[in-house]
Amino acid sequence: MRFVRYGAPGREKPGMLDAEGRVRDLSGVVADISGAVLGALPKLDPEKLPLVEGTPRLGPPVAGIGKLIGIGLNYSDHAAEIGIEPPAEPVVFMKATSSIVGPDDDVVLPRGSTHGDWEVELGVVIGREAKYVSEAEALDYVAGYTIVNDVSERHFQIERSGQWTKGKSCDTFGPIGPWLVTPDAVGNVQSLGMSADVSGERMQTGNTSTMIFTVAQIIAHLSEVMRLEPGDVIATGTPPGVGMGRDPKRYLRPGDVMELQIQGLGRQRQTVRADP
Amino acid sequence: MRFVRYGAPGREKPGMLDAEGRVRDLSGVVADISGAVLGALPKLDPEKLPLVEGTPRLGPPVAGIGKLIGIGLNYSDHAAEIGIEPPAEPVVFMKATSSIVGPDDDVVLPRGSTHGDWEVELGVVIGREAKYVSEAEALDYVAGYTIVNDVSERHFQIERSGQWTKGKSCDTFGPIGPWLVTPDAVGNVQSLGMSADVSGERMQTGNTSTMIFTVAQIIAHLSEVMRLEPGDVIATGTPPGVGMGRDPKRYLRPGDVMELQIQGLGRQRQTVRADP
Repeated sequence: MRFVRYGAPGREKPGMLDAEGRVRDLSGVVADISGAVLGALPKLDPEKLPLVEGTPRLGPPVAGIGKLIGIGLNYSDHAAEIGIEPPAEPVVFMKATSSIVGPDDDVVLPRGSTHGDWEVELGVVIGREAKYVSEAEALDYVAGYTIVNDVSERHFQIERSGQWTKGKSCDTFGPIGPWLVTPDAVGNVQSLGMSADVSGERMQTGNTSTMIFTVAQIIAHLSEVMRLEPGDVIATGTPPGVGMGRDPKRYLRPGDVMELQIQGLGRQRQTVRADP
Repeated sequence: MRFVRYGAPGREKPGMLDAEGRVRDLSGVVADISGAVLGALPKLDPEKLPLVEGTPRLGPPVAGIGKLIGIGLNYSDHAAEIGIEPPAEPVVFMKATSSIVGPDDDVVLPRGSTHGDWEVELGVVIGREAKYVSEAEALDYVAGYTIVNDVSERHFQIERSGQWTKGKSCDTFGPIGPWLVTPDAVGNVQSLGMSADVSGERMQTGNTSTMIFTVAQIIAHLSEVMRLEPGDVIATGTPPGVGMGRDPKRYLRPGDVMELQIQGLGRQRQTVRADP
């Protein structure tokens, strides 16, 4: 099943995609797609739900995300690209939840930003509270998967007094979506092709098979440190091809268009603007 | 005015303290003390509100905290203590909001933790959305002040593959409260004495006058990077005397009791336990 949230920002309604990719209205069944329902998503035949006319804006496919957790340097080929040894255990950081926007909303560079960068990432949506879970059982806690663009400002991230937070948490730096795809519809989550294009040029090409730490390992690891709650989202790291890793380096400019894809999870498309 | 939230975890009701420090029931006036009401906290005479009998447990004085932002190395005497140059701009990190507990709830060391540490900090509660605000106007966005114990696991924070998140975000590592004190009742926020005792021994003694970056500077700085929203809480850094900075080093043990005070903001008291 593929769940969506559609409508104006902050007023999204829950929906499902039908076999033809059209949005069906789920608001008669659940109030919203949020932590409260992720543990028991309704098994429904979308063809029996009301059809939503047109092509509405999509919001993030989960409402009320409590934590947006990032994993750094999690692709062996990306770590090599930026010249860093693979870490001994997952590198964990947080993105402010106020950075979250829909999959096709504009990405706005904050004042003074000259080093905006893209990162296509597999997003894991937690469905049940997880604490001290083993790697073997970790995937039982997943409600589904989505795409996260872990937009980053490299100067803010690296050169402004330590910790990555400033470069990861700017408003609009967390596009999520378009869909929340249930695990049964994804298949093997460690074998998904992915890509990111910027203004028509293919920048990132990767596959979740080159993750240093698998999704199950990441969940188990995080759950040793903090409880994961329904509606938390984990962005699991990015493959090679970010702007910072290119030669010459290439950073986001107003007017750029980012297009991100992961196999089975759909596509995002953001236009870049700059805050005046 | 001094606002509180009292009752069982997750079911707290809003309250106020009267002149004698007794809890008065505010639930007939507002549904909760949360972002939705922080911009226009009711001006009330608590003596006219119903008295709450006994001494109820207090929760964090703000519900639905969206971001719990930490500032690192923000006291000139603390930076010296751990041998680090004062930063050129505020060091920003995030604590998971799932770490938040009430001011007197137990602090639980996660499995494998041997380097738990205390940090008494002035907490700033945002009352109105702040984006690109100047230092001169920054304090207009403050709903009030509280105490945060920025509990930290130094091994998790420093030696487990970069970024401080793992050492800052463990469940129960974010005691907040007891009160949300409005700015008019606090006076000069840059002149507040503060202390932390562990099991009866005075460990930290400080004053907000030795902050490297003032509250106003921190708000202005953060608002350049991300919007601050009503109900966000900023922990503004800690003065000297953390366990990591002592000689010999002293870390938390099960059974330890932490008692934190800031002038005009009350007192916290947590008992330390360990997860089995």
